[in-house]
Amino acid sequence: MSYLGVGVSPGNVPVYHGSNLKVIDRRVRLAELVLRCVICGLAILSAFLVGTDTQVKEIFTIQKKAKFTDMKALVFLVIANGLVAAYSLAQVLRCVLSMIRGSVLFNKPLAWAIFSGDQVMAYLTLAAVAAAAQSAVLAKFGQPELQWMMICNMYGKFCNQIGEGIASGLLVSLSMVVLSAISAFSLFRLYGDNKRKSSGRW
Amino acid sequence: MSYLGVGVSPGNVPVYHGSNLKVIDRRVRLAELVLRCVICGLAILSAFLVGTDTQVKEIFTIQKKAKFTDMKALVFLVIANGLVAAYSLAQVLRCVLSMIRGSVLFNKPLAWAIFSGDQVMAYLTLAAVAAAAQSAVLAKFGQPELQWMMICNMYGKFCNQIGEGIASGLLVSLSMVVLSAISAFSLFRLYGDNKRKSSGRW
Repeated sequence: MSYLGVGVSPGNVPVYHGSNLKVIDRRVRLAELVLRCVICGLAILSAFLVGTDTQVKEIFTIQKKAKFTDMKALVFLVIANGLVAAYSLAQVLRCVLSMIRGSVLFNKPLAWAIFSGDQVMAYLTLAAVAAAAQSAVLAKFGQPELQWMMICNMYGKFCNQIGEGIASGLLVSLSMVVLSAISAFSLFRLYGDNKRKSSGRW
Repeated sequence: MSYLGVGVSPGNVPVYHGSNLKVIDRRVRLAELVLRCVICGLAILSAFLVGTDTQVKEIFTIQKKAKFTDMKALVFLVIANGLVAAYSLAQVLRCVLSMIRGSVLFNKPLAWAIFSGDQVMAYLTLAAVAAAAQSAVLAKFGQPELQWMMICNMYGKFCNQIGEGIASGLLVSLSMVVLSAISAFSLFRLYGDNKRKSSGRW
């Protein structure tokens, strides 16, 4: 993880550059690609699980149908997952293109765009999962102080599937957190200079 | 924001170092200090507003008391705000110390610790605010599909104060997002070398 001394003396840079670092860089980019593919898949899974979940219950002669649009937080979760899936797909294409071309990210505006996008998606998915989880807890346990009944004893299958969708969403947001750290690294290393006495630049 | 060319030729580094960059570095550290103080204050305000909020309502002869512990999400918000206030206070002391000493952050383990702490706090406060906001929306508008009644028509004063607490919490989490970007910059610039052809190091 640490290449502290490398680059302090400009003379030794080309020695390291040709061998080890290219391999490490390729591995980081491969990890990024895999992570983005996983996020795309899990986000679609989460949106699908939540979005297609319905259960019909007959109480006496009245039919009641539970669906995800009954809770605004679940609608928000489906939208957030859709957005992050589309975003990840676009990023996967970019990653594949840059791997085919063998280019390394030196373009600051592009690095800023990727960093910002990843940050927004990480915070968005986390907020969506937190809100959905809060709703799910209320649905599961109710809130007796406010006379809000638990509803999962009535709609057991519906609640389980929502739970699976929220779990996938949680994995998406945790992966986005890791990815946003990787893109922060890719951006801000462009501002470093490894000169111990002069790194006060922004 | 951009010092693209600086440091590419090692010969010119000392020229920039003595004047401009020290000033910029001091400004960044001052901004960090101010932001941490603001976060500490707002987090205490938010925890205080939510934590001390109660309202007693008499319905016929029965007295009902609304308090923040009726909703788990509000308890989570108070705890998260308490944590972030304590964390920010510790960081403010560190910032002041490093400003008095005039030292610049070159210690990688410390930079990693600050980066990780800021990331955790940013995601924690955002999740807490999202969950609390979701509960607040339910309390304000109810959820007729689930027979969850709105309660803010009964406890108007209570709900308003909770709303103010959540707004402060939102400002805290947005400031933490900015701060975590600053600490990512402070950490990852230590890994850069500004050599266009050899920045594949991790």
